[in-house]
Amino acid sequence: MLCNGCQNWRRNWYYQYELNGAYVNCIAEFLYLVFSLRGFSRLFGRRIKNNSYWYDQLYQPTHSVHTTAPSESAPSSHAENRLRLIAQPLTQEAFAEFGDVIDSVGHTPMLINDGMTERYHALARVETGGPEGEALINLFFAKPYALPMRLFSMERHPLGSQAFVPLDARPFLVVVAPKSEQLVPADIRAFVATGNQGVNYRSGVWHHSLIAPDEAARFLVVDRGGPGNNCDVVEFDRQLEVVLEYPR
Amino acid sequence: MLCNGCQNWRRNWYYQYELNGAYVNCIAEFLYLVFSLRGFSRLFGRRIKNNSYWYDQLYQPTHSVHTTAPSESAPSSHAENRLRLIAQPLTQEAFAEFGDVIDSVGHTPMLINDGMTERYHALARVETGGPEGEALINLFFAKPYALPMRLFSMERHPLGSQAFVPLDARPFLVVVAPKSEQLVPADIRAFVATGNQGVNYRSGVWHHSLIAPDEAARFLVVDRGGPGNNCDVVEFDRQLEVVLEYPR
Repeated sequence: MLCNGCQNWRRNWYYQYELNGAYVNCIAEFLYLVFSLRGFSRLFGRRIKNNSYWYDQLYQPTHSVHTTAPSESAPSSHAENRLRLIAQPLTQEAFAEFGDVIDSVGHTPMLINDGMTERYHALARVETGGPEGEALINLFFAKPYALPMRLFSMERHPLGSQAFVPLDARPFLVVVAPKSEQLVPADIRAFVATGNQGVNYRSGVWHHSLIAPDEAARFLVVDRGGPGNNCDVVEFDRQLEVVLEYPR
Repeated sequence: MLCNGCQNWRRNWYYQYELNGAYVNCIAEFLYLVFSLRGFSRLFGRRIKNNSYWYDQLYQPTHSVHTTAPSESAPSSHAENRLRLIAQPLTQEAFAEFGDVIDSVGHTPMLINDGMTERYHALARVETGGPEGEALINLFFAKPYALPMRLFSMERHPLGSQAFVPLDARPFLVVVAPKSEQLVPADIRAFVATGNQGVNYRSGVWHHSLIAPDEAARFLVVDRGGPGNNCDVVEFDRQLEVVLEYPR
């Protein structure tokens, strides 16, 4: 089974469907409901993640999960271990460190198809991490989050880029941190993408999972499939409260 | 310069902008306006295509252009050399010969991101024709055609797939013919994609360029960049009138 982006162990119950069919999936869904309380599932998740046959079976390749150390968690400018992220307008300049903004603004199109089509060429390039990787086209349907929201983790894909393009012309929120071995919370940036902007996270760039504010939304996602571990997750230290705000 | 999809010689005047800057582009735009009558430009285009230094300079790699022979142009079921294409609803089954339909319908999602996102995984795979190719993400802004319309040519990309996903939730028309060395007009099929459906043409599949009916529309396009000739164009024999109808 391919690496399908980052999920934690709870979500991976669902992969049983592909591996073992509907019967095991039913049991998994039942267990998911029973154990879905956050604290318990987190505890249980750790145990499974480290020891269980199931985990390796259900989610290949496995994740690397780091936890930020308390000493590096809290940026000095924020008292009481609270990091407040206020999402800023997304621009190519501000986002250049993290990847591409997929947007016609600021680009000159080529006129093709007998003058009937403007082509905004190569706004983003898909990184697939060598000859074993391939580019996949997927749809993501996101449930909405209520903002402000607390963030608990971020993820990165060391082998491939990942692009998100909104299909419902609704804004979405982008939370990123520079490519580095250890995520530094003080370096996290938050942006608001308009409904006409997509983003392409370069491989290795830390990012939060998809955040649709207010309403459910559909996205086209282009990312990397193929063998190898293409997902690391870092959970914030629980003493650091990371809060995302969406100014409107 | 990369191959940016199929364009005929008239469109390629615009590439001078990249190669020679704004001055030459101005001349090109003037010439384009002067010679934009279809018959004259077609004649002129042939000459340029075969002989001119400009053509090779302006459009690398060059196209292979075929013209369907009269003997194979007219399907026997259509009298008077007229081929009438009535666009049918797009389904994965009907389109399987040509590529993928990018649509959630009929697929079971994976639940990821703490249950907040449904992932419809690998609805299409990007073909990049070997290690020298890469997947590109582009935006296409299409001007509308009035339907019914006469079609004059089709194209194929021998080295890569090409996906179109509507960003304005508006239907568009898809005209395709099976992968084969010579396009057989009798095998052409036409489909209507809903505003929630994208398509991914497999490499080598003959297809018409983007057709947005009624209104201008934006598309996300994922295709192949890299060296090599990735575009062949075939022009229908002028004695064959190919007409596309969009029943509503």
